[in-house]
Amino acid sequence: MNWLDEQIARISAPDETAREGARLRLDNLTKPRGSLGQLEPLLIRLAAATGAICPTLERSAVLLAAADHGVAAEGVSAYPQVVTGQMVLNFLQGGAAINALAKTAGAQIVIIDAGVKSELPPHPQLRQLQIRAGSGNIAREAAMSPAEGLQLIKAGVDSVDILWKSGLDLLALGEMGIANTTAAAALTSAYTGAGVEQTVGRGTGIDDITLFHKRGVVVMALERARRAAQGPLALLCELGGLEIAFLVGAILGATARRVPVLLDGYITTSAALAAYELAPAVQPYLFASHRSAEPGHHLALAQLGLTVEQGAGPLLQLDLRLGEGSGAALAIPLLKSATAVLREMATFTEAGVSE
Amino acid sequence: MNWLDEQIARISAPDETAREGARLRLDNLTKPRGSLGQLEPLLIRLAAATGAICPTLERSAVLLAAADHGVAAEGVSAYPQVVTGQMVLNFLQGGAAINALAKTAGAQIVIIDAGVKSELPPHPQLRQLQIRAGSGNIAREAAMSPAEGLQLIKAGVDSVDILWKSGLDLLALGEMGIANTTAAAALTSAYTGAGVEQTVGRGTGIDDITLFHKRGVVVMALERARRAAQGPLALLCELGGLEIAFLVGAILGATARRVPVLLDGYITTSAALAAYELAPAVQPYLFASHRSAEPGHHLALAQLGLTVEQGAGPLLQLDLRLGEGSGAALAIPLLKSATAVLREMATFTEAGVSE
Repeated sequence: MNWLDEQIARISAPDETAREGARLRLDNLTKPRGSLGQLEPLLIRLAAATGAICPTLERSAVLLAAADHGVAAEGVSAYPQVVTGQMVLNFLQGGAAINALAKTAGAQIVIIDAGVKSELPPHPQLRQLQIRAGSGNIAREAAMSPAEGLQLIKAGVDSVDILWKSGLDLLALGEMGIANTTAAAALTSAYTGAGVEQTVGRGTGIDDITLFHKRGVVVMALERARRAAQGPLALLCELGGLEIAFLVGAILGATARRVPVLLDGYITTSAALAAYELAPAVQPYLFASHRSAEPGHHLALAQLGLTVEQGAGPLLQLDLRLGEGSGAALAIPLLKSATAVLREMATFTEAGVSE
Repeated sequence: MNWLDEQIARISAPDETAREGARLRLDNLTKPRGSLGQLEPLLIRLAAATGAICPTLERSAVLLAAADHGVAAEGVSAYPQVVTGQMVLNFLQGGAAINALAKTAGAQIVIIDAGVKSELPPHPQLRQLQIRAGSGNIAREAAMSPAEGLQLIKAGVDSVDILWKSGLDLLALGEMGIANTTAAAALTSAYTGAGVEQTVGRGTGIDDITLFHKRGVVVMALERARRAAQGPLALLCELGGLEIAFLVGAILGATARRVPVLLDGYITTSAALAAYELAPAVQPYLFASHRSAEPGHHLALAQLGLTVEQGAGPLLQLDLRLGEGSGAALAIPLLKSATAVLREMATFTEAGVSE
């Protein structure tokens, strides 16, 4: 067994006793049955994932991975590549949306330089992986070598283990990388079989002409990758961003520790698709924070079983298209509120209320 | 000018300077323009309502009004009438969903006995109005007299003023009253003109036969009220619950103080419809926390201009049907998170990020 297979084998099945316990408790609390709507299946899944009927989510973290993308050279983004590094500095200085949102949610932020091209100063909140600076241009070459991909996945597992050792109840994922919706679209097409009309969107806000061009670039990348790669890991290395490979590792690491993983938007969800292809056992530990404005996001969530119809819908639908983990951080207080209900409410018998 | 007209005249127009200031600031923060989706028009409306470009919502309260409904005698609810008082005791003991949710949101709860039939003990968190115990059965008689309606509205204004004097940035509304979705449906039909097929739903969970019966009861109430009443206040007294009349006053009081009002589900939104009919100036101060499972709720929100298309959509769509202010309390952290973004994020210039 190689290292990755061993890591995957550490992911347990969800806890059916805790699942049933949460279901029973919800039906005995002083409220009409089912009246908490989508929060009820959410709480039941959280119990199954954590193994606790009444989970506590006090210690949460946003793992925010940044990297540059060679495909930016194809002109697929509304922003220049230098913005990736500038935004990492902004995160470190506390000036980005995710800083405000994580603070309000009471979550710590850990920032990972998974392959930013610009020079970044050392900083206590920043972990620099130094595996590769920027991915290859996926329209013309592999994003990374298989060895680099495995190193990034391993770094993801390790980063979560470090967090877990000092206490971690909930892991929110975030990302930053100019042009990374292009990589996410390519991965989503590769893993779901959906055409680029369904998976390529406007990212942070490109115009019609750039949108058509971006679709062509993803078609090129997909054709190249299909010739070059076989299997989910090879596809990830062909098409995925460096931060996406890191996040795949973070998902494998968190699920092996029974830590629920809160996805953000399209890019973190494409990482979840890759993780799910490698290890279907991750599914019970995945939670969708929001459905973003990117059209392919819903498709990727559906493939993961994370829709309302599948009993695990995204908590928010606010047309966010910011990334950084912003949607995940917004949803943390919702998850905390839901678990407080399960933990603190009285049953009909305790409260003396007629059933 | 009578007392009510004077109160209504205290509601100011929204602050257009603050609105424009928030809009400009949002466009200069280090994020792609519009990338916060529906949170951006929300923040712009909050600025206009409060008069602050970067509002703070630190001091929030859930005003939870309970009352009994004579129409419960028609068998329109899945629960017996005695549950209203039992649930108020549960609120006072801290065992209900709203207790857990308000605590997580950092909001205080003020409970109003606006006309519960069962005897309730004095309690520091409970204000007992003693205007009337239970409304009339609206299928056969007026819910309350015009004098009682005005007293309840006045009590709502007074309750908000008490809160406001010790500091209030955000008012969330909640309610409890067995059979009160029947009153909400009647008011929504009366104020929007929509038929009972659109406004009468399953409340806390009635079966098909009871649903048809409930529609018949609302038709009876509407026909009776149309003969008896003219004008929005008279309709409220004919059809509205005692807690609904109180909440109308709370809305008039809060909006006169420029305090944003966070609606909960169908019943609080029917109170907002009544307030809006009395005083259209309340609209800029109203915020929809969620869209509930009740079919008429969306209709009522649309009449109030509180849909996504109208730039003021509900923050959550989780199929909640609990009431108590539960959806409003769930949304408080979202509002706080959004305002933190507006207040704490850096601009492109401050952060040195390319625009």
